[in-house]
Amino acid sequence: MRIALGISYNGQRYHGWQSQPDGHTVQDRLEAALTQFAGHPVSTLCAGRTDTGVHGLGQVVHFDAPVEREEISWVRGTNRYLPTDIAVQWARQVTDDFHARNQARSRRYAYVLLQSAVRPSIDATRVGWVFSELNLHAMQEAANTLLGEHDFTSFRAAACQALTPVKTISAIHINATPMRMGHAPASSSERSIPTCYWRFEFEANAFLHHMIRNIMGCLIMVGQGAQPPEWMRHVLQARSRDAAAPTFSPDGLYFLGPRYDAHWQLPQSSALFDYIPGASSFTAC
Amino acid sequence: MRIALGISYNGQRYHGWQSQPDGHTVQDRLEAALTQFAGHPVSTLCAGRTDTGVHGLGQVVHFDAPVEREEISWVRGTNRYLPTDIAVQWARQVTDDFHARNQARSRRYAYVLLQSAVRPSIDATRVGWVFSELNLHAMQEAANTLLGEHDFTSFRAAACQALTPVKTISAIHINATPMRMGHAPASSSERSIPTCYWRFEFEANAFLHHMIRNIMGCLIMVGQGAQPPEWMRHVLQARSRDAAAPTFSPDGLYFLGPRYDAHWQLPQSSALFDYIPGASSFTAC
Repeated sequence: MRIALGISYNGQRYHGWQSQPDGHTVQDRLEAALTQFAGHPVSTLCAGRTDTGVHGLGQVVHFDAPVEREEISWVRGTNRYLPTDIAVQWARQVTDDFHARNQARSRRYAYVLLQSAVRPSIDATRVGWVFSELNLHAMQEAANTLLGEHDFTSFRAAACQALTPVKTISAIHINATPMRMGHAPASSSERSIPTCYWRFEFEANAFLHHMIRNIMGCLIMVGQGAQPPEWMRHVLQARSRDAAAPTFSPDGLYFLGPRYDAHWQLPQSSALFDYIPGASSFTAC
Repeated sequence: MRIALGISYNGQRYHGWQSQPDGHTVQDRLEAALTQFAGHPVSTLCAGRTDTGVHGLGQVVHFDAPVEREEISWVRGTNRYLPTDIAVQWARQVTDDFHARNQARSRRYAYVLLQSAVRPSIDATRVGWVFSELNLHAMQEAANTLLGEHDFTSFRAAACQALTPVKTISAIHINATPMRMGHAPASSSERSIPTCYWRFEFEANAFLHHMIRNIMGCLIMVGQGAQPPEWMRHVLQARSRDAAAPTFSPDGLYFLGPRYDAHWQLPQSSALFDYIPGASSFTAC
């Protein structure tokens, strides 16, 4: 019997999703918990691997269950054996032709960025940070040049294992939520910048290793005025990692989850987006 | 020269605010950073001590500076020596009659509670959790019986060092933010409860040790229907810790900060409230 699970996790303490010999990954913890609950070894396949420090809101996995259990028992039973920063959100019995990775039509990610004169503290490891003011229109113009099917070699990490650097980005949405007061209580002796959360949402058929963090580095350079918006097209066309900005921090990156055809009848993960800092005022992609 | 500082911190890793021999408190880290930056020993006095695991958004301290520095330098210089989960938000030079504790007219706290069939993961240690549906009107009715000046012995920890158990609560506001989808993607085989963030805001001249966590335990019992709203008055009048519910988790408790008279011209911490999960849709007290 094949089971699909929706998983949320805080990636801060883990060496990414993918199982490793040191055992300190989200997949290792999930499989250990499933194995304990089922009393038999369980191995899983996920919709999208995440890097060290990257968070997951709507990750989806599938596995072939060695024992028969109710859907709700897979949720509650597995959560008993998982660490506090990982939780199964739902379980569904699926037909044997469901495959969490192969059937995913697209993947969605969000990047949350704190723009503030003072670095994050309460939200450290959950948001990226810039201490200069960003320009929305410049960033959106640069982002638009990435839409559609392109060779994304310029944004690809050396370690990337994808078969092809050609991917199709269907959407990049950028918006900002001002803090309640508009400005952080910065010292009067300092030229203050408006404090806000920026949210970037990306959707593509698939992403290369570090692709979003490398795009974020470039978007921030454009947003700060260090490069004009049309520079993004030059970076893309260079097909060289050297052309792009440095890889930006993983702290604010959230895997929102895959999209599947409706006939699989799997829950949408959108309800979980409100766990993201500053998310309540954003509209979903 | 006396300096006032606004401080934000994630309390998860610390043994509370108050300095201890093991050195693993927020005050210890702050004073070590100030001492390193100033090159001379610095000791601080705070507006409100917080417990192990409790977070601070608008904590205020004062100290007598052993060296002269610009206000913005106290912010940036100290933050260089602080761990990533503590940050100075602002610094102001104040007159020598300012005292962070004695001049505070009131203190404000917020408690953020996730109501969901599934426990927190991405937000673990930053929100409390209930897995049954709470009744707003019952809780607000119970909370209203606590308003005004009372002997709060029933809600006071044994270790409390306050001179008197008589405090004045000026406000308790309770409201809920539904998640975007209204319901968590719970399994169809389970009776689902609406997923939401509850936010409780408390303001009083001062609070006893564990007072809010003990009140929270009682409010949740009333919200779940385990006790009627009028039970809260019986608990209050009993003047006995045995009459109240168990102390609730510190995970969702945030010290919003003290209020001072306007003539001190200190920044309001309200801009920071948006760091609280689900906060953007709430209106401030």
